[in-house]
Amino acid sequence: MYKNIKAYAAKSSNDNLGPYKISRRDVGENDVLIDILFCGVCHTDIHYLRNDWGISVYPLVPGHEIVGKVIKKGNKVKNVKINDLVGVGVLVNSCQSCFSCKKDLEPYCETGATFTYNAPDKILGGRTFGGYSERIVVDKRFILKVPENLDIKSVAPLLCAGITTYSPLKKWSIKKGQKIGVIGLGGLGHIGVKFAKSMGANVLVITSSKDKVDDAKKLGASDVIISTNKRLMENHKNTFNFLLNTIPRAHDLSPFLDLLKIDSTMVIVGAIEKFEKVNMRSLIFGRKSVAGSLIGGIKETQEMLDYCSKHNIVCDTEIINIQEINEAFKRMQGSDVKYRFVIDMKSIKK
Amino acid sequence: MYKNIKAYAAKSSNDNLGPYKISRRDVGENDVLIDILFCGVCHTDIHYLRNDWGISVYPLVPGHEIVGKVIKKGNKVKNVKINDLVGVGVLVNSCQSCFSCKKDLEPYCETGATFTYNAPDKILGGRTFGGYSERIVVDKRFILKVPENLDIKSVAPLLCAGITTYSPLKKWSIKKGQKIGVIGLGGLGHIGVKFAKSMGANVLVITSSKDKVDDAKKLGASDVIISTNKRLMENHKNTFNFLLNTIPRAHDLSPFLDLLKIDSTMVIVGAIEKFEKVNMRSLIFGRKSVAGSLIGGIKETQEMLDYCSKHNIVCDTEIINIQEINEAFKRMQGSDVKYRFVIDMKSIKK
Repeated sequence: MYKNIKAYAAKSSNDNLGPYKISRRDVGENDVLIDILFCGVCHTDIHYLRNDWGISVYPLVPGHEIVGKVIKKGNKVKNVKINDLVGVGVLVNSCQSCFSCKKDLEPYCETGATFTYNAPDKILGGRTFGGYSERIVVDKRFILKVPENLDIKSVAPLLCAGITTYSPLKKWSIKKGQKIGVIGLGGLGHIGVKFAKSMGANVLVITSSKDKVDDAKKLGASDVIISTNKRLMENHKNTFNFLLNTIPRAHDLSPFLDLLKIDSTMVIVGAIEKFEKVNMRSLIFGRKSVAGSLIGGIKETQEMLDYCSKHNIVCDTEIINIQEINEAFKRMQGSDVKYRFVIDMKSIKK
Repeated sequence: MYKNIKAYAAKSSNDNLGPYKISRRDVGENDVLIDILFCGVCHTDIHYLRNDWGISVYPLVPGHEIVGKVIKKGNKVKNVKINDLVGVGVLVNSCQSCFSCKKDLEPYCETGATFTYNAPDKILGGRTFGGYSERIVVDKRFILKVPENLDIKSVAPLLCAGITTYSPLKKWSIKKGQKIGVIGLGGLGHIGVKFAKSMGANVLVITSSKDKVDDAKKLGASDVIISTNKRLMENHKNTFNFLLNTIPRAHDLSPFLDLLKIDSTMVIVGAIEKFEKVNMRSLIFGRKSVAGSLIGGIKETQEMLDYCSKHNIVCDTEIINIQEINEAFKRMQGSDVKYRFVIDMKSIKK
């Protein structure tokens, strides 16, 4: 199914991985060695494993929703202690000197941030390897502190799905009483609903799946619009202050743009693709905007974790062993997960 | 060439127009009768005459850049006097009661504003007829006052091309010293350059035409980027605060989006079409936006005319007689006009 690329867990650099050998750098003076406890399974992992975007380099170790414990650190690391509960998200490095990095917007690093896996590794050469693994070494500036009061299994997906939805809601200043639409109810959408609701918005879920109505309401949505119901869509025309679009593939934007009030914005966070037939009339006739947003900066990711601690927000998860990963991928493609698989990485040793 | 639809000038309602008869309503208590002196020729006129958008209803009288003199008015009209120099732009009516209308944003009227031509005429029934005509009757609320110090021939295109570019520059708060790109140098682009320059911006023109470099600089651009020159485009990557996109047809947005700084916006004003292959990656990886903007409200159009009066700004125009209109259309399609044709409507009587 995955073009002969098997998902696998990378053990430490000295272990035999069959045909592959994965190297991991030594712990430098600014590095932290993390014993990985849990790693979330993101739709992006499937895209990379299948080489959907034509940029995958094998061997490839996915995983960018990592929670673990600090077991070693360099002598210049002051922001964490041994045994601290920490997280690593989608990024493990950036230039730290460009306009974006100076503004704590590392995902938009002008020279290209280093993604947690499959990215050119500027230190070791080769590619970075992600969190489907026992351990990882990460620069101290990309380590998040995980609040102790949260269920850590369900914190892991906050590092990607969480910050990806939190960041645009904050950037576009979602306010109490605003009518906010979350388009798509999957890994991103479900936590987006929780965040928007916690910010005081009137949240509606817009989905093509009739069977998601009850769940959407349990997550905090005041109502659900079935996107294939033209009458319903028409009733809500020109009424939304903001739309968070989490659909993970290209689609027709016009029916959703019609829902926006004048001068309002739809932010795309799910689909990094070429969209066919984007109708500019939908934008022009309401002075509307389509924007994109990419995860969030490290400072904002920490802010998001602290916000979750205060508001007691985590993702809804299903815990699996690494041995079940291929089955999990299959179920994700059928939207059969509520709402994020998380791998118990201790299962590697089984 | 125009699918057997000839452009023609509509004389008053009692004249014989060959196969067609154009009616014009009586002057009501809130109406103003205008003796048309000049009418600009907009690219939209060609789209309507050719039925490019599939919405044309014939007989069709184009023209929505109208300057003329008040020759009669209803007894409730207080905002203009007989012999006042006035203008009419793209709109002649709107509901006046929706959210948009109450905010002086009539183009975005939620029930649909009445366009100056080819729109359902809510008063007479049938369709509205535009400014390629001797006279027009318009509701007082849609009448603009034309400043006496400007060259009135060249004021006409301000009513569409002018406000279409002025409005987004104001809405997106163009400031002194910002690097602003105007994409395309035609009827819209040339006046967009003048406005952006007058607002203190560092204006660059982005065009595929090498022969427009000198003209762009004369209009106020500090530099010109030839969009087919990849090295030049690369040099300006991530540097623009705002892009005003005036290209009148669908095109690949990505090379232009790459020019924007993080968190910046490109506004589309030229092409009301479906764009193929809009790459969301270009938006997501820079938290960039694409927005649309449609002419401007009546209050803002008056503000724009007063701004032009103060800054001595008008369009660059070429004056023609109505008998030359088909030749003008042909030349426009070859970009052979600097930068707007304006019809001397007194030529109808020739």
